[in-house]
Amino acid sequence: MAPVITLTTDFGTGDAYVASMKGVILTINPQATIVDITHSVEPQNVLQAAFILSTAHSYFPEGSIHVVVVDPGVGSARKAVILRTPSAFFVAPDNGVLSYLLDAPGRGPARPSLPIPSNLEQREPGTGFEAVHITNPDFWLRPVSATFHGRDIFAPVAAHLSLGVPLSRFGDSIKRLYAFPIPRPDRDAEGNLVGHVLHIDNFGNLITDIKNNDLPTGELVVQIGSHRVQGLSQFYSQRDGLMAIIGSSGYLEISLRNGSAAAFLGIKVGGAVRLRRSKAATQ
Amino acid sequence: MAPVITLTTDFGTGDAYVASMKGVILTINPQATIVDITHSVEPQNVLQAAFILSTAHSYFPEGSIHVVVVDPGVGSARKAVILRTPSAFFVAPDNGVLSYLLDAPGRGPARPSLPIPSNLEQREPGTGFEAVHITNPDFWLRPVSATFHGRDIFAPVAAHLSLGVPLSRFGDSIKRLYAFPIPRPDRDAEGNLVGHVLHIDNFGNLITDIKNNDLPTGELVVQIGSHRVQGLSQFYSQRDGLMAIIGSSGYLEISLRNGSAAAFLGIKVGGAVRLRRSKAATQ
Amino acid sequence: MAPVITLTTDFGTGDAYVASMKGVILTINPQATIVDITHSVEPQNVLQAAFILSTAHSYFPEGSIHVVVVDPGVGSARKAVILRTPSAFFVAPDNGVLSYLLDAPGRGPARPSLPIPSNLEQREPGTGFEAVHITNPDFWLRPVSATFHGRDIFAPVAAHLSLGVPLSRFGDSIKRLYAFPIPRPDRDAEGNLVGHVLHIDNFGNLITDIKNNDLPTGELVVQIGSHRVQGLSQFYSQRDGLMAIIGSSGYLEISLRNGSAAAFLGIKVGGAVRLRRSKAATQ
Repeated sequence: MAPVITLTTDFGTGDAYVASMKGVILTINPQATIVDITHSVEPQNVLQAAFILSTAHSYFPEGSIHVVVVDPGVGSARKAVILRTPSAFFVAPDNGVLSYLLDAPGRGPARPSLPIPSNLEQREPGTGFEAVHITNPDFWLRPVSATFHGRDIFAPVAAHLSLGVPLSRFGDSIKRLYAFPIPRPDRDAEGNLVGHVLHIDNFGNLITDIKNNDLPTGELVVQIGSHRVQGLSQFYSQRDGLMAIIGSSGYLEISLRNGSAAAFLGIKVGGAVRLRRSKAATQ
Repeated sequence: MAPVITLTTDFGTGDAYVASMKGVILTINPQATIVDITHSVEPQNVLQAAFILSTAHSYFPEGSIHVVVVDPGVGSARKAVILRTPSAFFVAPDNGVLSYLLDAPGRGPARPSLPIPSNLEQREPGTGFEAVHITNPDFWLRPVSATFHGRDIFAPVAAHLSLGVPLSRFGDSIKRLYAFPIPRPDRDAEGNLVGHVLHIDNFGNLITDIKNNDLPTGELVVQIGSHRVQGLSQFYSQRDGLMAIIGSSGYLEISLRNGSAAAFLGIKVGGAVRLRRSKAATQ
Repeated sequence: MAPVITLTTDFGTGDAYVASMKGVILTINPQATIVDITHSVEPQNVLQAAFILSTAHSYFPEGSIHVVVVDPGVGSARKAVILRTPSAFFVAPDNGVLSYLLDAPGRGPARPSLPIPSNLEQREPGTGFEAVHITNPDFWLRPVSATFHGRDIFAPVAAHLSLGVPLSRFGDSIKRLYAFPIPRPDRDAEGNLVGHVLHIDNFGNLITDIKNNDLPTGELVVQIGSHRVQGLSQFYSQRDGLMAIIGSSGYLEISLRNGSAAAFLGIKVGGAVRLRRSKAATQ
């Protein structure tokens, strides 16, 4: 039974780019099960791809191979890499798109520039991780184009991985990969936690960088633009209007019942979400 | 050979929601064949999902498992259910999204409110149908979120169903499911049949709630907005301009050759389509 | 191991049309591997479908079955056909959508009308090709609608082909298929090569009908609208701003680093791209 290969790209679905990758994979491994994560990443938005991937990969079978091709530097000196974690493989350009997998605890708050992170730093993957610089052309399509490594390098490498080719055959082990600082909430002068909108989903839910365990104790008051939401809701139909809720990936979300919070509030990715403890709780 | 599992949601394809469901299914049943029906249902539009599903499910292999997650009440007291019909399984919230499967003959004309039906009534499925209230957490992902039962309940239940787990293991049998009255044409004061636009497809074809066998005998005259179409066309390129045609699901459609009837007429879902018998036929 | 069946349509993904085709295929051949090429072809744009298909099919396994349903003439006298090439099968209406497969060398420059080619001519497929007129209803869904041959004829025929049914069973061999002249660059009065934008991809790259081996020797100067680009870039991040590059399908592309050349230049499909040899090279 062949492993699952997932695809996350900014290719859209109107061209044949994604299909060409699938054709290449199925030519090498006809038994591969290919699953699209999304192809609607904004062009070149490495951070968005990294975030979406981070919410999905852990739901796939152990040993799945996740191919990520958001690759503005294709054809340049940026490396193509494989990252093996204890549960999965990731095949991607070394441009920060795997940052959520390399996240180290204890770092201070920071927000990468958007859409292409300019504050990349090299980081060592965690224990049990192994990274390889893809250099062996035996596993590539030939000739390799300079503009479409998704089809010519990443897809065939993933397909060969799915056939059980050992990691070491694809290239030399490397110690460090590029990562951007994972977006985390700040604190303002009064000590309130200030998060930021990280992603806006199909429903217009505003997904912030505030995680469940960042929440202060006591009754919560969320300030977003000129609106204030009191208390956490448990589910989307619990109350009318705006609500704050812990979403399915563990992040604080601002939602609007049967509507788009993003459209209603006019808030974009990067917008601030401030948490105040309610007076009852803080006085 | 594992059954087909289909997915119909309002999740869009820009987030990882759909992919997470697929990952969960493939973790439980790596042999599952997963097919997307659509993920472009308007957010919370239960009626649209019900209609689209009704046009597709009968083309799938017997025993297919159709998962429908258009679920504005997720996390609330609304039930999660499995409906077994003589030919397939449906896994969905009990919110009317399975109404077309529960349609009973002989009811009067009615149109549900849009997009979320407020005129739900409980109805007994037909002979040979069986419904189960999903309550056994043994077949769920844990922990279960309150916002994403698609991933945490519907997907794993469908995957276990595809492995042959008997219906009774998922929860108790229930006698009635919620349904909305299926949209049907009315009659106006002069006895003309008045249908309504039920769905606008990718081509701008206006699909009405008038079925083939609703059509009056004699030459047909269709009035839509200020336009009038005479006679039924057999296929889209039979004539230029606007035409009336029986579409591939058996409903009367208004189409524009090589164009969008919806854009040309400025008609939306719910708009009226009036059938007159031509004078030649009625005099 | 069943062959791959690919689907290229103008159906969009918001309706159940594509899913119905997949259900039909899986009912006939549960082992089929189905891959979407795209369903976002502009409605009735036969030329766009032909081009997208031409960039993808060669990356699929030998013996793959490519179903193309961009079919404004559905239900009319236009033929449904199977074309077998030395490497694959194509199942499509005989309306020019297979033109790139029938391209013969030595023809003069020409551009088909858009979106529906009116300059179709009948052409004999190359050596090693075989074409069949699909007429045997034993392999169709019944009843056959007049509006959805994708579901009722093309899908079931492709599924039966994937089971190994011989070509001759589907209908009689035919000698000629309709094709439009493949878009090719012209020359202006000064002898400069004048290409045209053939396709705009998801990134806003302008893909022209100028191929790698059409390029004049010497340093290249590309004129597009009021902009001029000097030299060929090797990859997208090689320089800032506008660039000319040979894309992954071998065509000259105009691209904008980290942006949309189409939006920046305001150029649409059909727009002219003029190649001048630089003065240094020509003097």
